[in-house]
Amino acid sequence: MTMTAPPMLRNDAGIATAVAVLKQRFGEQISTGEAIRTQHGHTLTWIPNQIPDAVVFARSEAEVQDAVKIAAAHRCPVIPFGTGTSLEGHLNAPAGGVSIDVSQMNRVLRVNAEDLDCVIEPGVTRKALNETLRDTGLFFPIDPGADASLGGMAATRASGTNAVRYGTMREAVMALRAVTADGSVVTTSRRAKKSAAGYDLTRLFVGSEGTLGIFTELTLRLFGIPEVIGAGVCTFPTVKAAADAVILTIQSGIPVARIELLDTLQVKMVNAYSKLTLPESPLLLVEFHGTAAGVAEQSTLFGEIAADCGGGPYQATTEPEQRSKLWQARHDVYWSVVNAAPGKRAVATDVCVPISRLAECIDATAADVAETGILAPIVGHVGDGNFHVQPLVDPNDPAEIAKVEAFIERLVYRALAMEGTCTGEHGVGQGKMAYLEAEHGPEALELMRRIKKAFDPDDILNPGKIVI
Amino acid sequence: MTMTAPPMLRNDAGIATAVAVLKQRFGEQISTGEAIRTQHGHTLTWIPNQIPDAVVFARSEAEVQDAVKIAAAHRCPVIPFGTGTSLEGHLNAPAGGVSIDVSQMNRVLRVNAEDLDCVIEPGVTRKALNETLRDTGLFFPIDPGADASLGGMAATRASGTNAVRYGTMREAVMALRAVTADGSVVTTSRRAKKSAAGYDLTRLFVGSEGTLGIFTELTLRLFGIPEVIGAGVCTFPTVKAAADAVILTIQSGIPVARIELLDTLQVKMVNAYSKLTLPESPLLLVEFHGTAAGVAEQSTLFGEIAADCGGGPYQATTEPEQRSKLWQARHDVYWSVVNAAPGKRAVATDVCVPISRLAECIDATAADVAETGILAPIVGHVGDGNFHVQPLVDPNDPAEIAKVEAFIERLVYRALAMEGTCTGEHGVGQGKMAYLEAEHGPEALELMRRIKKAFDPDDILNPGKIVI
Repeated sequence: MTMTAPPMLRNDAGIATAVAVLKQRFGEQISTGEAIRTQHGHTLTWIPNQIPDAVVFARSEAEVQDAVKIAAAHRCPVIPFGTGTSLEGHLNAPAGGVSIDVSQMNRVLRVNAEDLDCVIEPGVTRKALNETLRDTGLFFPIDPGADASLGGMAATRASGTNAVRYGTMREAVMALRAVTADGSVVTTSRRAKKSAAGYDLTRLFVGSEGTLGIFTELTLRLFGIPEVIGAGVCTFPTVKAAADAVILTIQSGIPVARIELLDTLQVKMVNAYSKLTLPESPLLLVEFHGTAAGVAEQSTLFGEIAADCGGGPYQATTEPEQRSKLWQARHDVYWSVVNAAPGKRAVATDVCVPISRLAECIDATAADVAETGILAPIVGHVGDGNFHVQPLVDPNDPAEIAKVEAFIERLVYRALAMEGTCTGEHGVGQGKMAYLEAEHGPEALELMRRIKKAFDPDDILNPGKIVI
Repeated sequence: MTMTAPPMLRNDAGIATAVAVLKQRFGEQISTGEAIRTQHGHTLTWIPNQIPDAVVFARSEAEVQDAVKIAAAHRCPVIPFGTGTSLEGHLNAPAGGVSIDVSQMNRVLRVNAEDLDCVIEPGVTRKALNETLRDTGLFFPIDPGADASLGGMAATRASGTNAVRYGTMREAVMALRAVTADGSVVTTSRRAKKSAAGYDLTRLFVGSEGTLGIFTELTLRLFGIPEVIGAGVCTFPTVKAAADAVILTIQSGIPVARIELLDTLQVKMVNAYSKLTLPESPLLLVEFHGTAAGVAEQSTLFGEIAADCGGGPYQATTEPEQRSKLWQARHDVYWSVVNAAPGKRAVATDVCVPISRLAECIDATAADVAETGILAPIVGHVGDGNFHVQPLVDPNDPAEIAKVEAFIERLVYRALAMEGTCTGEHGVGQGKMAYLEAEHGPEALELMRRIKKAFDPDDILNPGKIVI
């Protein structure tokens, strides 16, 4: 297999007609300039860029509807675009078509403080939402790293460091509105916290990566800002010891808000980049949310568990500045990797396994990294069994690319063999399509294809992603 | 509109052939006796019973597959059956067909204590599962009242008193296996805690009420048994005061495990039935799970909030026997209603609204009960905005049935007008079908129909439920 996306047929005539009609309808809101098109088809993987034929900047649901109706009439693909931070080629246009940029649909429409929810447009980013919420005592916890649009986060079922306590976009999205393949608008659910009224369309759209509809509104769960936030770090002799501490923490019901692992290679990289002097050994970073007494209790319990598992010393604090210092190693992960080998590109991939298999999976992966002779640090949202590997690749070295592709393939099959998944949070896009049948089996894939066909019979919604 | 289910065409010849073939295949495991058929088509609503033509007692996934393949070959409907405790006519056979009883598929296949999950057959009941888990320090929290089969609970997206803290079956089911319309078996997900690998088939099957497939295996999330359980009760002058206390409790981030409301009429009924002397005023019952310090802190905070909202006195305890006493009013709700008017039948219905609208919705409903001149106490899982009304009906009095039907219709439209849902946890079955379009809109209903058609083109899986 290869990471290169399969070629798709282009409906050249239909696309040309659709773009011409869209130009008449959207005037200055449509661009066919190469720079803008390249930016909208960009990918953070090595999958070759496949840029769209035009970009429509939609400002309202009605405009998204118009754009989709025009495109649908001429069988021209449409690809929704938020902030362009997806990682698996989600925004590529393998069959050409039009990128629909919703970044200007960025209004927070309602904040329902009593119900702990809000209604937003899809272009709102997570940081912008939290900025708006600042004075309400509430916050939106899901943090995938990038300041992604919430529409994009819903589309890829994003999660991140806080998911162990607050869940993923699967749990955070209460309802949404989407423009479907024929340009009509569907509302998936009500604002009630739970419902048993029919098929769960909300959860079906979350994670559908633009292949079933284009989101135009999201209702999201919010949480009260914790009274106190505690942070801690602890070094462990082995990944196994750290993973054991994670398992015991979760089993004990300690409602840890974040629990992140850096492997030895990643610790070396942040030491080098941030001039830290952390022991060159696996590191766990934890965060606790709650009342003063609650956080103190959680932190003490975790410290005891860490010591029982051979970790230490455990440093903890609730003082904001000290917290940032303790967590600096985690915050600097990205830049430490990017700067570790100038000229190389960091390619992020992720898998997720049951936490009982986490140590085994990470150890085998670290051994594979060493054997393969690549630079690929590991950092994990280990409370969920989810970890990232970021191989550094010279984009102009086909041999190295092939080596890393083969490594990722082994990583995925290793996770699948441990009852895991080929992606915990990055999504399928083009990069993980090849693994879906091995993960889910042909029967499940057949049902996914039928859903796609039922929702989008002409295959115009982000074609060539998830299933074909 | 009427609560009576719409008539459906029967494929008499096909059903007769299927039953004959099934008899050859299943021998003593199939029954056509009237008593057994009646029991398997039974309904706890007033929807007329529509009994199946035969009942197959399946003992394995392979047997479910065989039964479905034979039925499918002759376009004979199949209706999965667990314990028969559903409330909206889910088990009726409006087009005839075969009930597939999976209650003998009741093995706990694996308990993965380190991962806090287990793999079970669908006929395991929630109490049986917790019995098996007893020595592991883990428990399965979802408690809809009845000792339902977990397959049935997944099929109706059940929840109950603990959902405010532990979620519903939507969150509890990590993966499942189902026999689909052509008799093949699909596995929906892996045992990893999260995944972004394609459409969320798990959530699509959860709540599908047997219309998309028959569950043969479930992977469920488990939780650590709390170190300490605290309980409390508090009387409030009005439903509004009680609801305000609920809202503040949730907003404050108190991880309340249960928070239940009894309205004045319900309090009167339990006083009468259980010889209690509770003030005849709305009552909140709460439960807290955690460490000793955590539970004490939660209970104190709740007591302060309750007092601020005009409630009191607040009685609380962590002593098991005292806890049972405090909660007796809640435990006796069912029998207090059943015994309130001998000869009448209690018909349970439920709706769910955003909690900011809860007081208004319950007050208007209680006023409607009084005006209509029926007996219909209210009890609610109010932390989720979900409440039950249990009108007492003389099944032989068509005028009273009509009166209660009209009352339920008003209740549903009242909840919908407040951004709520026609059912928070009982499901659609036949009883709530008429409201789905008003709740979701024609576009969403059309997508649900397309999903049903894509999964079950011949409409043999529990036909006449959810959407037709």
